[in-house]
Amino acid sequence: MAAAAGGFRALDDKSLLEYIKATPALCAQLGNQLDGISIKEVGDGNLNFVYIVVGPGGSLVIKQAVPYVRCVGDSWPLAKERSYFEALALKEHGRLCPDHVPEVYHFDRPMSLIGMQYIKPPHIILRKGLIAGIEYPLLAEHMAEYMAKTLYFTSLLHHSTLEHRAAVAEYCGNVDLCRLTEQVVFSDPYKIAQYNRWTSPYLDHDAEAIREDDALKVEVAELKSMFCERAQALIHGDLHTGSIMVTSDSTQVIDPEFAFYGPMGFDIGAFLGNLILAFFAQDGHSGQGNERGPYKKWILKTIEETWNLFHQKFISLWNEHKDGTGEAYLSDIYNKPELQLLAQKKYMSNLLHDTLGFGAAKMIRRIVGIAHVEDFESIQDDRKRSYCEHRALECAKKLLKERCQFESIGQVISVIQAIPV
Amino acid sequence: MAAAAGGFRALDDKSLLEYIKATPALCAQLGNQLDGISIKEVGDGNLNFVYIVVGPGGSLVIKQAVPYVRCVGDSWPLAKERSYFEALALKEHGRLCPDHVPEVYHFDRPMSLIGMQYIKPPHIILRKGLIAGIEYPLLAEHMAEYMAKTLYFTSLLHHSTLEHRAAVAEYCGNVDLCRLTEQVVFSDPYKIAQYNRWTSPYLDHDAEAIREDDALKVEVAELKSMFCERAQALIHGDLHTGSIMVTSDSTQVIDPEFAFYGPMGFDIGAFLGNLILAFFAQDGHSGQGNERGPYKKWILKTIEETWNLFHQKFISLWNEHKDGTGEAYLSDIYNKPELQLLAQKKYMSNLLHDTLGFGAAKMIRRIVGIAHVEDFESIQDDRKRSYCEHRALECAKKLLKERCQFESIGQVISVIQAIPV
Ligand SMILES: Nc1ncnc2c1ncn2[C@@H]1O[C@H](COP(=O)(O)OP(=O)(O)O)[C@@H](O)[C@H]1O
Ligand SMILES: Nc1ncnc2c1ncn2[C@@H]1O[C@H](COP(=O)(O)OP(=O)(O)O)[C@@H](O)[C@H]1O
Ligand SMILES: [Mg+2]
Ligand SMILES: [Mg+2]
Ligand SMILES: [Mg+2]
Ligand SMILES: [Mg+2]
Ligand SMILES: [Mg+2]
Repeated sequence: MAAAAGGFRALDDKSLLEYIKATPALCAQLGNQLDGISIKEVGDGNLNFVYIVVGPGGSLVIKQAVPYVRCVGDSWPLAKERSYFEALALKEHGRLCPDHVPEVYHFDRPMSLIGMQYIKPPHIILRKGLIAGIEYPLLAEHMAEYMAKTLYFTSLLHHSTLEHRAAVAEYCGNVDLCRLTEQVVFSDPYKIAQYNRWTSPYLDHDAEAIREDDALKVEVAELKSMFCERAQALIHGDLHTGSIMVTSDSTQVIDPEFAFYGPMGFDIGAFLGNLILAFFAQDGHSGQGNERGPYKKWILKTIEETWNLFHQKFISLWNEHKDGTGEAYLSDIYNKPELQLLAQKKYMSNLLHDTLGFGAAKMIRRIVGIAHVEDFESIQDDRKRSYCEHRALECAKKLLKERCQFESIGQVISVIQAIPV
Repeated sequence: MAAAAGGFRALDDKSLLEYIKATPALCAQLGNQLDGISIKEVGDGNLNFVYIVVGPGGSLVIKQAVPYVRCVGDSWPLAKERSYFEALALKEHGRLCPDHVPEVYHFDRPMSLIGMQYIKPPHIILRKGLIAGIEYPLLAEHMAEYMAKTLYFTSLLHHSTLEHRAAVAEYCGNVDLCRLTEQVVFSDPYKIAQYNRWTSPYLDHDAEAIREDDALKVEVAELKSMFCERAQALIHGDLHTGSIMVTSDSTQVIDPEFAFYGPMGFDIGAFLGNLILAFFAQDGHSGQGNERGPYKKWILKTIEETWNLFHQKFISLWNEHKDGTGEAYLSDIYNKPELQLLAQKKYMSNLLHDTLGFGAAKMIRRIVGIAHVEDFESIQDDRKRSYCEHRALECAKKLLKERCQFESIGQVISVIQAIPV
């Protein structure tokens, strides 16, 4: 078990046990009772190895990044330094919103290894809950809180430009992960690309139509530029429903390895866009009847509530801290309630438009790009699946192209509901 | 003459001579003939010391930054590291556009000292030429070339996102200078601030109207956010007519100490906005008659030609390099002439709007903020000056608020011409 280049070596169940024994911070989390410990690799994600470590005196999770894309193999290299940015973001977002982020116990930069809080059963990955048709009454409230806090406090509404530029510079180092997003979200779906796939032959025409939709492609270029250029806040960067673990009364956001200073709408859009995908997948989970009807209503309600609660919480933070450190809107300039209101209205309206654009782009890439979602993949029947996917695509194209015309989330819900059967 | 903290010591004529003698790169520029050298401090700028060094065998200019704002004194500290970013930008922009940027001979980081090409007489500062009513037939052509090259080649139209993020991170270090801009351009003019001044009492009402113009202030907040968040290209950051030296056939851009990755429109707007100021100042330089009439026409023509030539050159570079390294518009996505055209049209239209917004903000701050321009200051008569300034302010407010409605520079010219007398 010799140390490899730069002190990095990929662990397995056995060498991980040795590693834990040699690491006091991890032993402490296990109550220093290392006999009878069980270690189980559960990484169902695309990129990394995740081990659940449970012993008689405590538990933890170990996540290790390897220098390539796990689900493709070492033919697709990817900076293992993503682990550093994941640890940094977990700590920063955890500080801002401890209720919804697992605690970090340990970080080993050379090993690209994070030791963190084990989000225990009955927590499951939200996406699986959405496929199973389970309602989460607090999901909208919790995600609104997570997004409002993490985004507000890392934006220029709270930061001085001094601390903002320093943080922006640091996260510029996570460029490899940004590039992955740029490729798989903003580029590959709009051209013929090696790893693209879709439900063929049913969606052949849909995929081609996307590659030939000039108006759509011009809008996507603007979104890509915004993603690359605009350091608005420290975003999670991969906030789909597979990065959220839930029970009926708890919501935990994991996996911010794509974190960097980017547009807020990319996070909000990722979450809402994946809820919309879940919505359109429901018809594929129904039997003959319409037994998922009420659940579809619940998803739409959750989309609407998430935005509205996010809006409310974000504005509350803004009002509460309006005389604070933030330098975007100085209180001796934006000095009257009606002016403050006007500024906030414009800010939130722009944010809704960005959210719809990015959310729609994330929907499209999950249907005609490399990485698909279990919501659709779990629909066995190709024809049925393609029907669901087709409707989701139609919805996404409309939201993306017409995003600047929306004034409320209610209008978005109407569009989702009006996609022809 | 002991070295001070970090190897920095502020030079004077005498110690500079010693410094030159001890620096081979500088001696070489003087043909190694150091007898009979004359040194003259000419810094008319607000921040730094500039020495012209002329000898029998050659000449050069030495620019040294001091750790405060020169025109205010050491009560206003300012990072002398600005010199590092000025040297970096001079070299980068000089590599991209050598015809319009002085060559850098020497850079001493601890000393915050740049040795560069002496832009010799008959070159004068453009602002002085504009006040004197001198036409520069190649100015539009040259500035369009400078802006097209420096902005295009440092944007994602040419950069990979890898090189872009690395460069962005580096220039985040120039935060002190960005903060100065944020304060004096986007904040102070819109509130009561210590160093604000205007032609009182004539403009008292105008200054107050600006502080109470809610619609204007909301737009200014958006421009400020864009300035702070959007890393579109390596901009000069201070591209007013005092940073340009001209003869009838040469145009040289100096003083990029504010350089960082920001919105392109900030540079283009600085130049055009200062030309508009020059336009409105002309009536203050006229005698009883209208002898500056033809010159005003020339200024308007120069504004129009600058934008149109910039547009043309920028698009030419884009077309020429469309299969190149840039990652904003990949050639296998933006793969048809009509799509390329559509994308470019949208890009340039957005850029015009940004240009007008930033240009107008720069106009406003020169009339009611801390740093005024000689174009107006040289008008002795207060009433006459305030008349010119008032009209420039009216024009700026209109351009700023209505910027997104402009489709061509011709429409901008019409607005300038239609400002009531
Ligand atoms: N802190 C945790 N507690 C419990 N399970 C976790 C935790 N972190 C990750 N997991 C499990 O491991 C899976 C993969 O983790 P994730 O961080 O998403 O890795 P990847 O970056 O490879 O997608 C998750 O879907 C979840 O099931
Ligand atoms: N390379 C140069 N050649 C000739 N004159 C120069 C040169 N650089 C600066 N100057 C003169 O010095 C003045 C101040 O220089 P500048 O770089 O604008 O300093 P500041 O940053 O203090 O504004 C200019 O207005 C110009 O007259
Ligand atoms: Mg994951
Ligand atoms: Mg991940
Ligand atoms: Mg200057
Ligand atoms: Mg040159
Ligand atoms: Mg300067």
